[in-house]
Amino acid sequence: MKQYTTIYDIENISNAIQEAIALKENPFAHTHLGNNKTLVMLFFNASLRTRLSTEKAAKNLGMNVMILNVNDAWNLEFEEGVIMNLNASEHVKEAAQVISQYADIIAIRAFPSLQDKEKDISEWILNSFINYASVPIVNMESATMHPLQALADAITIEELKIKSKPKVVLSWAPHPKALPQAVANSFVTMMQELDINFSITHPRGYELSEDITKNVPINYNQEEALQNADFVYVKNWSSYTDYGKVSPVEEDWMLTKKKLNTGKFMHCLPVRRNVIVEDAVLDSENSVVIQQAHNRVFSAQIVLKKILENLQT
Amino acid sequence: MKQYTTIYDIENISNAIQEAIALKENPFAHTHLGNNKTLVMLFFNASLRTRLSTEKAAKNLGMNVMILNVNDAWNLEFEEGVIMNLNASEHVKEAAQVISQYADIIAIRAFPSLQDKEKDISEWILNSFINYASVPIVNMESATMHPLQALADAITIEELKIKSKPKVVLSWAPHPKALPQAVANSFVTMMQELDINFSITHPRGYELSEDITKNVPINYNQEEALQNADFVYVKNWSSYTDYGKVSPVEEDWMLTKKKLNTGKFMHCLPVRRNVIVEDAVLDSENSVVIQQAHNRVFSAQIVLKKILENLQT
Amino acid sequence: MKQYTTIYDIENISNAIQEAIALKENPFAHTHLGNNKTLVMLFFNASLRTRLSTEKAAKNLGMNVMILNVNDAWNLEFEEGVIMNLNASEHVKEAAQVISQYADIIAIRAFPSLQDKEKDISEWILNSFINYASVPIVNMESATMHPLQALADAITIEELKIKSKPKVVLSWAPHPKALPQAVANSFVTMMQELDINFSITHPRGYELSEDITKNVPINYNQEEALQNADFVYVKNWSSYTDYGKVSPVEEDWMLTKKKLNTGKFMHCLPVRRNVIVEDAVLDSENSVVIQQAHNRVFSAQIVLKKILENLQT
Repeated sequence: MKQYTTIYDIENISNAIQEAIALKENPFAHTHLGNNKTLVMLFFNASLRTRLSTEKAAKNLGMNVMILNVNDAWNLEFEEGVIMNLNASEHVKEAAQVISQYADIIAIRAFPSLQDKEKDISEWILNSFINYASVPIVNMESATMHPLQALADAITIEELKIKSKPKVVLSWAPHPKALPQAVANSFVTMMQELDINFSITHPRGYELSEDITKNVPINYNQEEALQNADFVYVKNWSSYTDYGKVSPVEEDWMLTKKKLNTGKFMHCLPVRRNVIVEDAVLDSENSVVIQQAHNRVFSAQIVLKKILENLQT
Repeated sequence: MKQYTTIYDIENISNAIQEAIALKENPFAHTHLGNNKTLVMLFFNASLRTRLSTEKAAKNLGMNVMILNVNDAWNLEFEEGVIMNLNASEHVKEAAQVISQYADIIAIRAFPSLQDKEKDISEWILNSFINYASVPIVNMESATMHPLQALADAITIEELKIKSKPKVVLSWAPHPKALPQAVANSFVTMMQELDINFSITHPRGYELSEDITKNVPINYNQEEALQNADFVYVKNWSSYTDYGKVSPVEEDWMLTKKKLNTGKFMHCLPVRRNVIVEDAVLDSENSVVIQQAHNRVFSAQIVLKKILENLQT
Repeated sequence: MKQYTTIYDIENISNAIQEAIALKENPFAHTHLGNNKTLVMLFFNASLRTRLSTEKAAKNLGMNVMILNVNDAWNLEFEEGVIMNLNASEHVKEAAQVISQYADIIAIRAFPSLQDKEKDISEWILNSFINYASVPIVNMESATMHPLQALADAITIEELKIKSKPKVVLSWAPHPKALPQAVANSFVTMMQELDINFSITHPRGYELSEDITKNVPINYNQEEALQNADFVYVKNWSSYTDYGKVSPVEEDWMLTKKKLNTGKFMHCLPVRRNVIVEDAVLDSENSVVIQQAHNRVFSAQIVLKKILENLQT
């Protein structure tokens, strides 16, 4: 693997899932791979799971890890040709090249503005690092994608499925703040790669990009959509069409125990209890969110392992 | 040892002190114990000694260390059953379980509010992690306790005492801000476990909880109390009865060289010079505060060592 | 080497440069040296290159690294004899001694105020740590010096020079904010130690301290000064005589491709594009700023290596 910026950087997803499950059995079997190799993790935004699980994954492989909160360094400029006489002290051209001198792999988290649709879709921060860095880039959630989460989700479904072609539904949920579409986008992209029965349910006005959803069935009736679901992935996102807006929704889209029935509840976390999902679901055995979070280590570890292997050849 | 949340988690304190002193002689003798084990250190509050000494202790044992400032992650909710539509993005139920997926031991620093006595006494933050985490918890100073400091203090007294039953006095001192009772509480608790002559001196109105002081003599006359003391532990705390308040004190409670006489001066640090204690004490050979700070490494290391040993069985 | 606070702590600069170039070929050849040794990196100010390159250098030598942003700890007091009843919770006397209990080497970054010339020149923060710490100090940029940068610059010139005595010019450049003289000071100091043809060009009013420039030729005409230069080191600094002021300059001092001609462009970074230097220079093959940044690893590594070797004897 040359980098991991979207799930399409994985050559064979079903193999990668099996390898990740094998890593989970024996996480310290490859410490030689990361010997004298350094992962620099670069944070433009808050993180708990991604920060800890990616650091853990790298250390499981014997790597050194250096963490940089961009707040502890300099304001970065991303525009070409600009006269830098305002707030930005350093251009991403230099920053990305410089960090590449100290890192064998750079992992980046940079959320969208949710203000400027075109700019967010352009993935200006992530792509600047891809363009200017001279080492592989790992996406720890960018403006439009969260591929480490999607891989952890796929691993979790593979581990837990009890039929060959389970029914998986992505169900929108309410949230007081405007959230990115990144997790939903990567999940939808990943689900289309698996041999499952996949559909999406959300209120009208919350359609994701058609470039992402392609032919996945969309049902505006949550109750209908969740019928006999084996896995219900719940997630809020702000409007993509009315970009970044949180328009009011009349029906109650919070996931309840009754709606979930016998399905497994999935969420990337952090999750707002009794807003996204009721306590009765999260505190039940049907919730697999902690297993998902645990699998974040192994989605990061298989990705780093494949990149390290590629660096050695 | 299963966890270290109060000094009562130590089975045999006098043995633990001796083992810590032995570790100090040979700090790198047990690097195999921490091999492929991870300590996550979680900070809700500022730290210098605790942060560096605990990280050092873990690395002396060969552990990996991952540090999370809660400010770099999400606002946490601690109440049960709440509708999370305000500022908190994640419930401690999930946070504690998730961090447990990445950690073999979790160490936490979380100071009290000093506003809500009942809530502080309930140790809501520390106990939430104890309840929901699936790995051992180490207390790096909670609302009411600082047991790593108390163990370092006991080690220091053991190293320095020149009679079998030294006289140790805890003496309150003034401070411009409202400070927690945690250090005083843990010190008083620890001193009752040692074979020493222990008493407390503070102005009226600054009584600590009777659950902590039990039968320890309290003398409101500092001069009298300090007579012939071998060790004088100086510390400010805000009022426990008039909770969190800093009521004015007429007499001068700052420790002076004259008051200390030939005793050893102890303090957990940070210490405000010429407010808590005069320069002449801190800069004299009677001050043992740097040795106390050094022993923080070995109090943390013996605790982590015993927890790691317990994990292996 | 006993410490590294100015370039004068290097016994033989030309040997050190050759050894650093050798380290670059084989960065992991000395991992035994740092075994069970700890570098504490202490930041009072922002950092990208210094933070990552120094951490990398230490880990290349097998050291453990612990990083402390002073913001995560306590406000420090530096004055002697003060009554600490205001904002500072801890005196540097204690902080420096305490950190010395946890570190084999302490590295510090502390910028000048640019308000109080005498205080800045006194290097009150750096010198407080030198005075009170009991372990070697490494300067990661202090009020008046940035010796790790100057060593990396010297390494870069040595690697790239194509004649035995190249012409090197330090050229002032404009900047919207008041910047320290530290990088210029250390560069000028270092260049006087090398067998080169060195001169400085800057507008009137931007003279550096004569204690630094000594007999180095100063030319107020940039065009003249840059004639046939092999290396042009560009850097802004605020006025030293009218201390910390940014007085307006009429001529255009930004470095252009035309002014640079066939010389190599050097800068310590971060650099403001099209303010300090035009894009056409930075994006050309004549720019060696990334190589300079890369050499920061090896300037730090040779310094740490020599200090570790000295600790062992």
